[in-house]
Amino acid sequence: MGRLAELFDPETVAVVGATDREGAVGRAILENLEDAFDGDVVPINPGRDEVLGHECYDDVSNAPPTDLAVIVVPPDAVIEALYDLGEAGTQNAVVITAGFSETGGEGAERERELRAAAEEYDLNVVGPNSLGIMSTPNGMNATFGPENALEGSISFMSQSGAFITAVLEWANEQGIGFQDVVSLGNKAVLDETDFVREWGDDPDTDVIIGYLEGIDDGDEFVRAAREVTDDTPIVLVKAGRTDAGAQAASSHTGAIAGSEQAYEAGLEQAGVIRAHSVQELFDYARALSGLPEPDRDGVAVVTNAGGPGVLTTDAVGDSTLEMADFADGTIDALREAMPDEANVYNPIDAIGDADANRFGEALDVALNDPNVGSAVVVSAPTAVLQYDRLAETIIEKREDHDTPVVACLMGGERARAAEEVLREFGIPNYFDPSRAVSGLDALATYRDVRRRTIDEPTTFDVDRERAREILARATERDDNRLGVESMDLLEAYGIPTPDGEIVDDPDRAQAVAGSIAGDVVMKIVSPDISHKSDIGGVKIGVADDDVYDAYENLVARARNYQPDATILGVQIQEQLDLEGATETIVGVNRDPQFGPLLLFGLGGIFVEILEDTSVRVAPIGENEARAMVDEIRAAPLLRGARGRDPADVEGVVETIQRLSQLVTDFPSILELDVNPLVAGPDGVQAIDLRLTVDTDDLETGGHQ
Amino acid sequence: MGRLAELFDPETVAVVGATDREGAVGRAILENLEDAFDGDVVPINPGRDEVLGHECYDDVSNAPPTDLAVIVVPPDAVIEALYDLGEAGTQNAVVITAGFSETGGEGAERERELRAAAEEYDLNVVGPNSLGIMSTPNGMNATFGPENALEGSISFMSQSGAFITAVLEWANEQGIGFQDVVSLGNKAVLDETDFVREWGDDPDTDVIIGYLEGIDDGDEFVRAAREVTDDTPIVLVKAGRTDAGAQAASSHTGAIAGSEQAYEAGLEQAGVIRAHSVQELFDYARALSGLPEPDRDGVAVVTNAGGPGVLTTDAVGDSTLEMADFADGTIDALREAMPDEANVYNPIDAIGDADANRFGEALDVALNDPNVGSAVVVSAPTAVLQYDRLAETIIEKREDHDTPVVACLMGGERARAAEEVLREFGIPNYFDPSRAVSGLDALATYRDVRRRTIDEPTTFDVDRERAREILARATERDDNRLGVESMDLLEAYGIPTPDGEIVDDPDRAQAVAGSIAGDVVMKIVSPDISHKSDIGGVKIGVADDDVYDAYENLVARARNYQPDATILGVQIQEQLDLEGATETIVGVNRDPQFGPLLLFGLGGIFVEILEDTSVRVAPIGENEARAMVDEIRAAPLLRGARGRDPADVEGVVETIQRLSQLVTDFPSILELDVNPLVAGPDGVQAIDLRLTVDTDDLETGGHQ
Repeated sequence: MGRLAELFDPETVAVVGATDREGAVGRAILENLEDAFDGDVVPINPGRDEVLGHECYDDVSNAPPTDLAVIVVPPDAVIEALYDLGEAGTQNAVVITAGFSETGGEGAERERELRAAAEEYDLNVVGPNSLGIMSTPNGMNATFGPENALEGSISFMSQSGAFITAVLEWANEQGIGFQDVVSLGNKAVLDETDFVREWGDDPDTDVIIGYLEGIDDGDEFVRAAREVTDDTPIVLVKAGRTDAGAQAASSHTGAIAGSEQAYEAGLEQAGVIRAHSVQELFDYARALSGLPEPDRDGVAVVTNAGGPGVLTTDAVGDSTLEMADFADGTIDALREAMPDEANVYNPIDAIGDADANRFGEALDVALNDPNVGSAVVVSAPTAVLQYDRLAETIIEKREDHDTPVVACLMGGERARAAEEVLREFGIPNYFDPSRAVSGLDALATYRDVRRRTIDEPTTFDVDRERAREILARATERDDNRLGVESMDLLEAYGIPTPDGEIVDDPDRAQAVAGSIAGDVVMKIVSPDISHKSDIGGVKIGVADDDVYDAYENLVARARNYQPDATILGVQIQEQLDLEGATETIVGVNRDPQFGPLLLFGLGGIFVEILEDTSVRVAPIGENEARAMVDEIRAAPLLRGARGRDPADVEGVVETIQRLSQLVTDFPSILELDVNPLVAGPDGVQAIDLRLTVDTDDLETGGHQ
Repeated sequence: MGRLAELFDPETVAVVGATDREGAVGRAILENLEDAFDGDVVPINPGRDEVLGHECYDDVSNAPPTDLAVIVVPPDAVIEALYDLGEAGTQNAVVITAGFSETGGEGAERERELRAAAEEYDLNVVGPNSLGIMSTPNGMNATFGPENALEGSISFMSQSGAFITAVLEWANEQGIGFQDVVSLGNKAVLDETDFVREWGDDPDTDVIIGYLEGIDDGDEFVRAAREVTDDTPIVLVKAGRTDAGAQAASSHTGAIAGSEQAYEAGLEQAGVIRAHSVQELFDYARALSGLPEPDRDGVAVVTNAGGPGVLTTDAVGDSTLEMADFADGTIDALREAMPDEANVYNPIDAIGDADANRFGEALDVALNDPNVGSAVVVSAPTAVLQYDRLAETIIEKREDHDTPVVACLMGGERARAAEEVLREFGIPNYFDPSRAVSGLDALATYRDVRRRTIDEPTTFDVDRERAREILARATERDDNRLGVESMDLLEAYGIPTPDGEIVDDPDRAQAVAGSIAGDVVMKIVSPDISHKSDIGGVKIGVADDDVYDAYENLVARARNYQPDATILGVQIQEQLDLEGATETIVGVNRDPQFGPLLLFGLGGIFVEILEDTSVRVAPIGENEARAMVDEIRAAPLLRGARGRDPADVEGVVETIQRLSQLVTDFPSILELDVNPLVAGPDGVQAIDLRLTVDTDDLETGGHQ
């Protein structure tokens, strides 16, 4: 994109609505800009000639050209100001003014007008209802809120202005610096996806962090973030995770929440690292902004105290990392360097009389070990350990080895002083061993994001035209709930189904059954009867001779159960040998933000009671389909646990992909359940199908 | 106990091994004692007349009587010093000296001598290998480590001296105070159970916290802690939770770890709140030491900012608490008190221009709501909000309502100043909304601990003598692995088993089968063949006519499989109708620290693959047995999910209790598995049994 660079690095900034009235937002912004901004500031206000010593212009059109305008006029005047700016050639605006979609009704209409104005002049608009933006390299604080941020390599966006205020005061105290900061406001024009793209291209941004309550276009965000996370880590707090939180978020921003399941899958597929608290957000960001990538999972722990060493080891056990298994040479070298009482196995306990030198020797040996990918230095304060010397030693050893090292120097004032020294060299110090390890864990997670290859969805050779016709027939019937009568849809997409047919008279039933070897299964077919088994609408093991009577009996039961039910006929299906086979479920739901969500699990209690499922945003490729199968807890059952024959997992993986293609081709499919998809040793078969379609628009999905 | 009171409140303290040599531990202790201790200090050292201005005695016997001795002499001299102290009438000693069991071999022998000396004179001994102890009311710092603690109501024990040093420096900075602090060292005499009892009786201790790597006598600890937690909360970090951590802990303290499963169950049954990090330990302790008990789970959130409000709501969603559903009157009152733009539903958003007064009004209304049991005040810093005023307002409202309130005043310097004010009134301020909520959650957890009633184990009318005989027979055979041949054991304890018998000739087999209605199940019975099905050692659905041949065939197969196997016979068992029944497993394992652990789960994949189990330390009462059934994820299956008939859950609950009684009566049962215990709609039946017994000692368990 690149175009947003000017938003953060303008030479001249207009403040539309600037004033010198005490307590006014228009004054606060001007004062904040005056504080450190190295460009020019141009106040615009028809009522004044001068504001805080700057020449003031009555109108944008009379003012000198500006690269960025910060708009603080009343809501009614915002749209006109944008048109004026567009005419004057200003490309970037931050709308501070509130009273848009967040107030509903009239405000929402005003926001549509704002969007129209932005489109007409191709303006980059932040907000409305924004706290403003900051960029530290040029000292620009175009917000009405907090003090200036320190300079750093973290770029930060937030859907909550207060979150920025709360965090910046604290971050300044902690010495945590930022590159750009954006209060997203209502995201009428620019949203999280735009800033992720912009910062992904910014060589001065090492980490992108954000507080979001919703993502407007999940699909687009995933695409952008996937690309960006190849080079730049993204850490997000997505608030509104829980039901209560989602309700609170929706009353805060007025946004439709979308499901947490969709966010979880979508953000994971996007390569985004999720933080669940403010503390985690910054714990991760601090590690990601200053440290190299760990090239393996083994962690070395160096300490002067057994207890903290054990705590750190527990934290490693809880993480995705593992305690490094030291090579023999390492053990020997540690024995050489450490006193007899020291523990030379990992965690290395250099014991209570260790000074900074001994820590340094132990760390050096550990970082030379081929099994060590990262290290934690954990210390309790003692009389012989100088924390400033320890900090210098850690910095030195880390640079010698290009391996990530984090610190957990515990204690009071001296710990804080050492922390400052470490920070300058990008080494975070954490109060708690578990947080130190979670910092390393974030590095490993991001390494895995960078290393993963996302395979393109396979395009299978399918009969799309036939599928279109089947869905069109439903539309003609104005029937939005389809069942087994649409099994052809699966066949059209190459998904195996048992031999059989839906028939609407008993003679035909008998004929079809006759053409199938062995007994058959018969099921009533009616869009009005969803729990067929419960009303006796399913018969299994029907011999050829009994098919005629069974047909009549099924229809009679259905009529009896619901006299006005539409009965499409009876399905005659080959009876499969299910011995040794496993029932699975593949489902699809459409999320308002992310589109089709694929769900996989084992049938029966596994999905319904144990909630043992995996979810992805479609479309997905083969690797992701396989990961869906592997990550359910009950996966060993499919792989052949407890003496079972392994099921045809590849068949399941292919079916998931074919369904991914189907629901991507036809956005009109709102919900779909293949339940069960039976997976036996020799293949898979889709036994039953239910789907809900949008009958308004087949190919595009009228709802979108 | 009470006897330990003198340990923490001595009038005279001897320092055995006191010296004025710079850098010596004996000097550090003396200096720490001199710092603020309001009693007398008596140095003992045969080489000096005076140490740091105190008259020095060459021997305990020549010194004035002392209430407590701190011993820092070399390891060889410790035992003699203890005898001298015992003779002189000193009852309490802290052994700082290291070189005991932690060094193995000779040191372990020395520790046995230490224990013997303590027993002879009934001495209270802390350590050896201890950092020392502190008590703030009398200013006693009898450690060689950290600065004095601030006075407070938290009593703190730690198995790691370094952990104390690391934490105290930080706690002093944070203004967190302590009552007593103990470095447990090797726990040769006094251990965690003693201090839990002592502090449970101490009116000045509001919360007991600890860092432990192991608990010596789990059973005893559970008993003590259960009693203490009626009045005083206990929060523990039990390090060595993970496999790697347990290994590190065992190399640190030399203790046998015991299983994490046992600690988890045992500590939960004891009413102990577990913290998983240093931060959690103090986050919980701060809430528990200053706030009243929440009388319901509804949480009110009051904020001036949407984003932090949503984050707090998510944290409540993650906790055991819930967002309070405000009564209509509350909504009305809030509408009255708040501006139009405010959100009067929970979380209450008093919006960005809220001052301390508006916060106060909102908090007052919320605390009056009958559905509110606790509240969180979350704020972002703004120009109009004075944090000092906000702190005072929170203190005032909290006192008016006697409801717990925690704060999350975000920001920098001003937040820290407000925090100090809040702290004085027992209100913790947390940096992060999620930590604030976890503080409240700890309060609710402790409330539930206090409210629970632990029912006494039911004593069922069993045939203990018969069970003893069955186990004795195994002992006679010197056979420590028993199987179905011991099903009588279950019968003796009133656990239903299918009709049947073990026979050792085919004629008898036929006779027994004839006396049983319907087909029978036949299984080879041999202690040497554990996977009977795998070798074809099980036949089901055997008709009476086929029993003779089946017998011979089973024996032949077993011989063929393992010619030298001991074959005890063939079990002839009634074939149960398993349609609609659920297979469950009840198992017992013996933990070195906690004794018999009961385990419950559903059969097959549920235990083996999904690890869906519940665990308790035996003996347990009815409530706990029922909780074991209810807390597995698959519990709905037993309760009649998906159209199944509910199983006889009460039968399962009773069986668990009867097994609890069995393994409590016979400590010689080391392992026991009833697998499966089939639970049908009309009752339960134990189908198969395996147990391992200690053949040395039946009634007491030779291993104990």
